[in-house]
Amino acid sequence: MTLAEGVHSNIHLALVHFPVYNKAGEIVVSSVTTLDVHDSSRIGRTYGTGVLYIVTPLATQQKLVARIISHWQSGHGATYNPTRKEALLTAEVKNSLEDVVADITERSGQKPKTIVTHARELAQSIGYDAMRTELKKEEQYLLIFGTGWGLEKNIIQKADFALNPIKGSEEYNHLPVRAAIAIILDRLLGVER
Amino acid sequence: MTLAEGVHSNIHLALVHFPVYNKAGEIVVSSVTTLDVHDSSRIGRTYGTGVLYIVTPLATQQKLVARIISHWQSGHGATYNPTRKEALLTAEVKNSLEDVVADITERSGQKPKTIVTHARELAQSIGYDAMRTELKKEEQYLLIFGTGWGLEKNIIQKADFALNPIKGSEEYNHLPVRAAIAIILDRLLGVER
Repeated sequence: MTLAEGVHSNIHLALVHFPVYNKAGEIVVSSVTTLDVHDSSRIGRTYGTGVLYIVTPLATQQKLVARIISHWQSGHGATYNPTRKEALLTAEVKNSLEDVVADITERSGQKPKTIVTHARELAQSIGYDAMRTELKKEEQYLLIFGTGWGLEKNIIQKADFALNPIKGSEEYNHLPVRAAIAIILDRLLGVER
Repeated sequence: MTLAEGVHSNIHLALVHFPVYNKAGEIVVSSVTTLDVHDSSRIGRTYGTGVLYIVTPLATQQKLVARIISHWQSGHGATYNPTRKEALLTAEVKNSLEDVVADITERSGQKPKTIVTHARELAQSIGYDAMRTELKKEEQYLLIFGTGWGLEKNIIQKADFALNPIKGSEEYNHLPVRAAIAIILDRLLGVER
């Protein structure tokens, strides 16, 4: 099946809150940020990606995400701002990345290839042009974004692909995850530059 | 003078809260969002841009921005998170775009060329490759971003350049201004893709 131009419903996003590092290098559960959910959803919707998975094992945080999603879909937010309603239609909360992979496999019949993004260069990192070429195969893909101080190293090591870090000027590179998602989707899926 | 690679201290950013439109198409002052200030600053710092101007005529909002900046520069935030301190070093609050242009002119001795970004296509819109070429001249430039529902039309009309809108898939295009800033700086100044 060939997808229509601008539609990338085979490319899914995961915003991961566990396992990630904190500033001290410890493995922690980071807190879900309402704004990260909204921004990721609006950015994903702009670039035509599939499901946005919010990954957290904490029940209270899962409830928060469910409330955000339902607020924009049926609450006051839906009437006030119908474009956000549209933007959040494909958001889901999951316990773990394993559950995300299982969900995509169940929906599509294919196990997704996983792609990690990282602020530091890795041995297996590839460039954005190479990844654009890979994505043309139109298989199932999962782009994994870490919150906090980055994805736990086993997730990185087990991924099928790792993208080159986004390099800016000088030594400074502390992009908010929202900004990284925007830049990476634009590099991989942007058109008409 | 030729700037070092990755340094774009001649390219400044303005995050404009007046005059912008609200949802109903009225000209309003939008509220400053703390997070927009932080994100814009971190994104600008990553791409090596010059001063980040936060434009609002409201004294209370100006005080809020001054507090954000000073918190990260000297308050608890500076010790807790030194990278943010660095990210906010070049933020300034101004009453109006005219004041921003005057400030750049005074600092640099050159009136900046203004560049607007807009969600809709305009008669004078140009592409990102053309703008990259223009920016190589290393004159003074001001990239103007509107909050709310977009920049008031006179600002658009008077600008020296307008960038093509960021097109995604289907009809949906409601990127948060933070995401638009990230994508546009990456398109104009990004390296090593």
